[in-house]
Amino acid sequence: MNYFSSSFKLGILGGGQLGKMLLTETRKYDIYTCVLDASNDAPCKIGSNEFHLGDLLDFDTVYQFGKKVDVLTIEIENVNVDALEKLEKEGITVYPSAKTLRTIQNKAKQKLFYIDNNLPTAPFSRFAYLSEIEDAVNNGGLHFPFVWKAAQFGYDGNGVKIVRTLEDLNGLPKGECITEELIPFKNELAVIVSRNAKGEVKTFPVVEMEFHPEANQVEYVICPARIDPEIAKKAEEVALKTSQAFKHVGLLAVEMFQTKDDKILINEVAPRPHNSGHQTIEANYTSQFEQHIRAILNLPLGSTANKGGGIMVNLVGAEGYTGNVVYKNIEEIMSMDGVTPHIYGKKETRPFRKMGHVTIVNEDINEARKIAEKVKNTIKVISKNQ
Amino acid sequence: MNYFSSSFKLGILGGGQLGKMLLTETRKYDIYTCVLDASNDAPCKIGSNEFHLGDLLDFDTVYQFGKKVDVLTIEIENVNVDALEKLEKEGITVYPSAKTLRTIQNKAKQKLFYIDNNLPTAPFSRFAYLSEIEDAVNNGGLHFPFVWKAAQFGYDGNGVKIVRTLEDLNGLPKGECITEELIPFKNELAVIVSRNAKGEVKTFPVVEMEFHPEANQVEYVICPARIDPEIAKKAEEVALKTSQAFKHVGLLAVEMFQTKDDKILINEVAPRPHNSGHQTIEANYTSQFEQHIRAILNLPLGSTANKGGGIMVNLVGAEGYTGNVVYKNIEEIMSMDGVTPHIYGKKETRPFRKMGHVTIVNEDINEARKIAEKVKNTIKVISKNQ
Repeated sequence: MNYFSSSFKLGILGGGQLGKMLLTETRKYDIYTCVLDASNDAPCKIGSNEFHLGDLLDFDTVYQFGKKVDVLTIEIENVNVDALEKLEKEGITVYPSAKTLRTIQNKAKQKLFYIDNNLPTAPFSRFAYLSEIEDAVNNGGLHFPFVWKAAQFGYDGNGVKIVRTLEDLNGLPKGECITEELIPFKNELAVIVSRNAKGEVKTFPVVEMEFHPEANQVEYVICPARIDPEIAKKAEEVALKTSQAFKHVGLLAVEMFQTKDDKILINEVAPRPHNSGHQTIEANYTSQFEQHIRAILNLPLGSTANKGGGIMVNLVGAEGYTGNVVYKNIEEIMSMDGVTPHIYGKKETRPFRKMGHVTIVNEDINEARKIAEKVKNTIKVISKNQ
Repeated sequence: MNYFSSSFKLGILGGGQLGKMLLTETRKYDIYTCVLDASNDAPCKIGSNEFHLGDLLDFDTVYQFGKKVDVLTIEIENVNVDALEKLEKEGITVYPSAKTLRTIQNKAKQKLFYIDNNLPTAPFSRFAYLSEIEDAVNNGGLHFPFVWKAAQFGYDGNGVKIVRTLEDLNGLPKGECITEELIPFKNELAVIVSRNAKGEVKTFPVVEMEFHPEANQVEYVICPARIDPEIAKKAEEVALKTSQAFKHVGLLAVEMFQTKDDKILINEVAPRPHNSGHQTIEANYTSQFEQHIRAILNLPLGSTANKGGGIMVNLVGAEGYTGNVVYKNIEEIMSMDGVTPHIYGKKETRPFRKMGHVTIVNEDINEARKIAEKVKNTIKVISKNQ
């Protein structure tokens, strides 16, 4: 198929910041795009050829939208999968596949998938209701501390909690959930695997994620990870095996733990461009967004090598500020060499809301890490008149 | 002024491929943009917040458009300068300034500016009409060979011709023109100077341009130029001096000749992002497009250093093909490491029409040059059914 012609249409479910960064690539290749999103303020309203307003979880809306395009992809997992299944049956190319999305949307199914495919992951239990956890604790089947995860619709640290006492369960959603053994780990790592339909596979270099101690949000993504090459190789292998198990086409971001005894355990996966790959825009020969487009259109994959060390700092709303956003000291960070802010364009900030990210590129990853800390300590996402 | 808020509006005159690449940066920073262009098919119709249809040479159209924005810039020189002058007087920030544009729009004025400011350039003569050239030749005031240039509205090798006999003048536009001594040169070089209103100045590394022998279009832009560091320094100094003479804010691309005896002579300048800087998107810490936005908004300038060797290959329509464009073998070049095509989205190709460009990034500039030649020999911009 000739993608570089106006008769081809690419559909994207979701019009958020990931979609916006995908659109940079579709503009570069002049690929015609249609975006579906429920918000009239979605970033992808600008940059897409057609913007459609509608509910991503509504069967008819997704189905009708999908019928208009040749290839359909997502920038958010929470979409109506029944519609995708029907579209696949009717010949629309859908990446990630409905089957993969169905597995990934539900964390219990996702964990079972790892077990079924002999992929390393932390031991877990599955519960239909939160109340069953208390029973399991009381009858000795579950021991503190453990990690509680909502089975559905969690993201960015929402839907995840470390539970040390029964009181910690208060206020959690009542529905389906899993508990995982709390694994002491040295590092959180991630590998983004790209694969096209003809089976070409390329992995981006392993990244290391430093988390904010309270908000459970990634604070720094560091690429390449400052780890033993043997560990990096192991992480890459696990990520590749995971992508193969899903027979995945597109990007699969595989988040992993490096345990105290240097085992690699899969934490979770995302079948799309991912926060752990934003630094690829500036730091790698091919960005994750370009690679996703290449993969789902069955084009040759680009080189995933680094041009230099890359670090991504999430720009999140500062605590104590809610309202019209102001990026305090943004000019100071722009005066630092190799520093590039990305502003997502959300009008209102609130504590820990993701408002953008900043990339730091430097030949020397340790130097980049120092600059990243300076960036983090300089820019503040606050609100007006506070 | 807070650019990162929706109350600020940036206006861009012209909605072509340069504008499209500027919009990638305004999207990254979430800067609100209004674009004016005469064509409803302009690439900037997508990616701008507001797209206005109108004639860039019409006083009222440009004036009314300019009144809507806070800062006004251009992506093409051929705009109504009287309107810009009035807008400046009324407090709109206009970069490049009306005065600079007026000088640059007319090649005779541009040449006089160099002379007045003691900037090195090839000797020239000015003619109100083409017919005066014949008189000058006949009375011995002008000798073959020389270069004819239309005073106005030439670009990409249009409006430039080497004249060796009187017959070569046939068919040229009758209007105002200049003739220049044909200087034997070793290299054509270019330096893009960036400067913001507070006077911060940064130059991009010197590039070397290899021209197509027939079409007089740039075939390869090579950065950094493979020249003696002394020559590079001299070229940078001339470019800086030129930018200072214009008191320029924004980007100024200065095209120069390195003569056989290693003098640097200014060929011409462009007060905007330029074809000789496209490779900065992938090869430099800051792209020329981001730098232009930083400069005109008086933000700190970014590092202009190379991340690696960068080469730009223009994608022009192949001879013998006119009609609906096909990018033959684009997949083959996409499978080469460090190769990124940019497709401008013009529906119809014709011989030598600029349809896109390809960037090649490699640590080793000589290796990049080899890949660039392979790219050039592989991809063909042709038309359907021919």
